Amino acid sequence: MVSRDKPLPLYYQLKSELLEDIKKGIYREDEKIPSENELQKIYNVSLITVRKALSDLVQEGILYRIQGKGTFVAKPKIQRYLNLMSFTEEMRQKGIEPSTIILNFGKERAEKDIADALNLANDEDVWIIERLRLGGGEPVALQKSYLPCSLFKDFDEEFLKTASSLYSILKTRFNIIPYRAEEDYNSINISDRVIAERLSVSLKTAAFLVKRITYTEEGIPFEYAVSILRGDRYSIRVNLITER
Amino acid sequence: MVSRDKPLPLYYQLKSELLEDIKKGIYREDEKIPSENELQKIYNVSLITVRKALSDLVQEGILYRIQGKGTFVAKPKIQRYLNLMSFTEEMRQKGIEPSTIILNFGKERAEKDIADALNLANDEDVWIIERLRLGGGEPVALQKSYLPCSLFKDFDEEFLKTASSLYSILKTRFNIIPYRAEEDYNSINISDRVIAERLSVSLKTAAFLVKRITYTEEGIPFEYAVSILRGDRYSIRVNLITER
Repeated sequence: MVSRDKPLPLYYQLKSELLEDIKKGIYREDEKIPSENELQKIYNVSLITVRKALSDLVQEGILYRIQGKGTFVAKPKIQRYLNLMSFTEEMRQKGIEPSTIILNFGKERAEKDIADALNLANDEDVWIIERLRLGGGEPVALQKSYLPCSLFKDFDEEFLKTASSLYSILKTRFNIIPYRAEEDYNSINISDRVIAERLSVSLKTAAFLVKRITYTEEGIPFEYAVSILRGDRYSIRVNLITER
Repeated sequence: MVSRDKPLPLYYQLKSELLEDIKKGIYREDEKIPSENELQKIYNVSLITVRKALSDLVQEGILYRIQGKGTFVAKPKIQRYLNLMSFTEEMRQKGIEPSTIILNFGKERAEKDIADALNLANDEDVWIIERLRLGGGEPVALQKSYLPCSLFKDFDEEFLKTASSLYSILKTRFNIIPYRAEEDYNSINISDRVIAERLSVSLKTAAFLVKRITYTEEGIPFEYAVSILRGDRYSIRVNLITER
């Protein structure tokens, strides 16, 4: 019950009620919740109160809006724990069925930042593998991996079609095993129409831009990967300890 | 030199040239770079090439645009390494002078999610400390901390004015020392006008929304903090290792 007699602000009480209802399954994933006017009547509060509660829940990624259609319940985010695993492993661990669409496979002269990241000479080639990653059939991430051709001589596109994960290919075909990685997370608005379309989001949607360099146990950088993770589908969970 | 004879796409060559020029200090922080038309002439490339190069650099946070004014060189991001330290320590380690504006200090009944995070009963009070954090005089983060009143009985606003960091106050006045923390990073667009104004950014700017629970060595949660970090000023650096 939202009530003026409680010590908490009305908008906050309404937020808590809606959160409870979502938890209880009264409103389900991708289901439309009542309109602003309806909520106003149901809870006997002002439109300002309803709007503040909804905009908070949208900002927090609990709800999402579709222009002209209404406000819907968002799927829970994929909480990324920071240990080094493939997309496939990560999704399976969350109980989400992973799938992949290969968008691009080819060989190119390494661009400068990629050559720098992978410790390559100026004229070296890299394999470029561009993949759309899906969770439960829905696009969640777009990933571009660069692998030095010198390390992976006869990489064949067919490998990608038969294996579930790139890392399993690198291991079984080339005996290269990821040991550690450096990742850099940036918060961006998706400004590229093609990227937005591939990820099934509208332009300007919030996303993580992640740059990863992956190393073998011997310290050889063997992969540079740039990923765009849908901001409405991912959160990054981190455990910090004091440095002593 | 941008040249059709090189094996790399023209827009990419232009990008590399501009990056080099920024590195060399030919274009400095917050300095305007030549207009699209000027770049077209300088490098003898098409407008499409210029636009692709610039929009990539804007997306990557190397440049930023001001409507009607032009394109400028962004400050390098504050690369956050994940260990548990105060804002003050973090900034000093980067050689950036930290400062803080206290926006709000008060006592309130804990809202449900905060009570849950801090393991509090329903009717317990928390101190609320809202601070704007600045680096080199520029707003970079907005932070709201919640501390259980039961743990910090006589917390006085004056403490905040005399100490540089909240953690140093908790340590010296209450003998509470942060040991570990759980953090959850989300990528959002700033949708609140007040928040945008405080952080000196325009609405819809990309940002990190970070929720932190901080624990003592005994496992007592003593702080729940919600921070908004400017996406153009922060990146999160992570080291991953394989789980064995």
